[in-house]
Amino acid sequence: MKLLAFSVSLRKGSFNRKLIKLAVNAAQKKGVEIELLDLLDYEMPAYNGDIETNVGLPEAAARLKQKLESAQGLIISTPEYNFSYPGHFKNTFDWVTRFQPMPWTNKAVLLLSASMSLVGGNRGLWHLRVPFEYAGGFVFPLMFSLASAHQAFNEKDELSNPDLAQRLEEMVGSFIRFAEHLKY
Amino acid sequence: MKLLAFSVSLRKGSFNRKLIKLAVNAAQKKGVEIELLDLLDYEMPAYNGDIETNVGLPEAAARLKQKLESAQGLIISTPEYNFSYPGHFKNTFDWVTRFQPMPWTNKAVLLLSASMSLVGGNRGLWHLRVPFEYAGGFVFPLMFSLASAHQAFNEKDELSNPDLAQRLEEMVGSFIRFAEHLKY
Amino acid sequence: MKLLAFSVSLRKGSFNRKLIKLAVNAAQKKGVEIELLDLLDYEMPAYNGDIETNVGLPEAAARLKQKLESAQGLIISTPEYNFSYPGHFKNTFDWVTRFQPMPWTNKAVLLLSASMSLVGGNRGLWHLRVPFEYAGGFVFPLMFSLASAHQAFNEKDELSNPDLAQRLEEMVGSFIRFAEHLKY
Amino acid sequence: MKLLAFSVSLRKGSFNRKLIKLAVNAAQKKGVEIELLDLLDYEMPAYNGDIETNVGLPEAAARLKQKLESAQGLIISTPEYNFSYPGHFKNTFDWVTRFQPMPWTNKAVLLLSASMSLVGGNRGLWHLRVPFEYAGGFVFPLMFSLASAHQAFNEKDELSNPDLAQRLEEMVGSFIRFAEHLKY
Repeated sequence: MKLLAFSVSLRKGSFNRKLIKLAVNAAQKKGVEIELLDLLDYEMPAYNGDIETNVGLPEAAARLKQKLESAQGLIISTPEYNFSYPGHFKNTFDWVTRFQPMPWTNKAVLLLSASMSLVGGNRGLWHLRVPFEYAGGFVFPLMFSLASAHQAFNEKDELSNPDLAQRLEEMVGSFIRFAEHLKY
Repeated sequence: MKLLAFSVSLRKGSFNRKLIKLAVNAAQKKGVEIELLDLLDYEMPAYNGDIETNVGLPEAAARLKQKLESAQGLIISTPEYNFSYPGHFKNTFDWVTRFQPMPWTNKAVLLLSASMSLVGGNRGLWHLRVPFEYAGGFVFPLMFSLASAHQAFNEKDELSNPDLAQRLEEMVGSFIRFAEHLKY
Repeated sequence: MKLLAFSVSLRKGSFNRKLIKLAVNAAQKKGVEIELLDLLDYEMPAYNGDIETNVGLPEAAARLKQKLESAQGLIISTPEYNFSYPGHFKNTFDWVTRFQPMPWTNKAVLLLSASMSLVGGNRGLWHLRVPFEYAGGFVFPLMFSLASAHQAFNEKDELSNPDLAQRLEEMVGSFIRFAEHLKY
Repeated sequence: MKLLAFSVSLRKGSFNRKLIKLAVNAAQKKGVEIELLDLLDYEMPAYNGDIETNVGLPEAAARLKQKLESAQGLIISTPEYNFSYPGHFKNTFDWVTRFQPMPWTNKAVLLLSASMSLVGGNRGLWHLRVPFEYAGGFVFPLMFSLASAHQAFNEKDELSNPDLAQRLEEMVGSFIRFAEHLKY
């Protein structure tokens, strides 16, 4: 089984980049092949039907589609912007859904979030489930929201709190079983 | 009182561009000053905290902020993409919220949607309310969703169905009273 | 594999009662054991922590818990009330979550809706996904919303539109495979 | 101007009962008439169209409707159950919407929540906005979520944290201005 992973936050020092790396490590410890993408490599213009008609789908959308076709599922770590998901990733998502069949269909999806707030970005995750589920993705019911993210990592970029670290590892393990169960 | 208006769909022939023009006409008939913006004039990169730190907020975000400061409210017509709002507009929204105070605060907001589906884009509107309300906007409770939009306009780009046309006019009128009540 | 099924609408002549029967038939044709419950047999008071402390959990909640423990998944057909799910079923759901472990955990869930509107109750389903997913249920991404339900059934209480009838059968079939995949 | 107020939690010692009393005090300090209802006085059966047809709307729904007609707005404090609103109150809401015109229309609504969690019940409030807004209520954009509610009150049932106490008072004040602006 192969998985993809990426951080929705584009900032180099982002807490979500740190968190997705921990999830990637956890998946590799379980023997799963997992490829970490950088969304900075997949820039796209604002979705515009005239571009689609006159120019075609962006080359970056085609590359992301190919990556998705190679994988059975994906792990995403995303910040929350204004009580919902970051718009730029939904724009990416919107472009990719213009391929038929939609490349998100039948993919298992694990959603993580990291935020400096006490809530940990959880509201954004609930909004983000909707387009994935509309597109036929299997979004794992459990989600991992890291609160107070600016205080959560030690100098090795591990989670300082061992209970949290264990909970993340276990959730990644449960998700891998879920994704394997759903091999279509 | 001054209002702004724009279509979230960027496509030139978009049903949402037609619908927002009808809303602008309705507002003008009520004697309200209303400026129709084109989001194609406000292109921004994907939100990235590193850009914000190293380069600053996009010039287009600053221009949109100024427009917002000049107005008491706004009317928006938006398609629904994948059961939620278009990502590119949320990216615009996210950039603009980086100004303090957030330029959306205390603005009255009327949400319209047009879609070829039977549902008319209503699900996207419910997601879009959340960031506006988080940012302290006063989103009018009633919303107007135009279903089967490809069959809804006549050759003059008016709504063929006189009941729908009247409902749109009345809703714009109710919204204007709401916005005037909320003059802060 | 055993499944449960019920209509959230309590009305005897409800379109959702008709729809859930069609789903039950479709599951039986696939050779699956499925038990149709009537929520009128599971009346509970409004959730009140003082009742829980002083009297205990309602006997009807305990019976529903036992039914859930006997099954691997459930199919629910629900109307939409006021753009969300019916409150009375959420009250039932809330009581049942007071058992530990929560009896909804790891259950596969297929959500259907029937409504006289053109939208078919779809908005209520999106709200209803949230408590099920919070409780660790595996909600099938696809959902079936029957619009114009008052015109949808023939005199034998089958769907008059053969395409819709086939789509329902196929969705039940896909859900059964999903539930079997997720046998934990 | 007259307002109503109530706690959705029915438990006698509920944190939401404490919080709504503080909101009532704050409104009274602003010179507003506000009546505190107890939802235990408004018990209703599970919504059932057969009851509505054969017996009529519950007497408790009619009493609540009369209370609503006497008021310009309402302040509600509610716990979060399973990441959404308590089902029993939505059942009450559903019954009351069977009166025409819907008694919630044009009412200004302020939503508060108290919870022992770090999130403070905020997710339930976002779900609860939807039926109120569908029914034409003017839900104030700002909401007050009291986290760690079991540690938040002093022995006089005031908020121990003076910043939080001031924020609640200010939000009630802002809401009162909003409700007065929207006098229809």
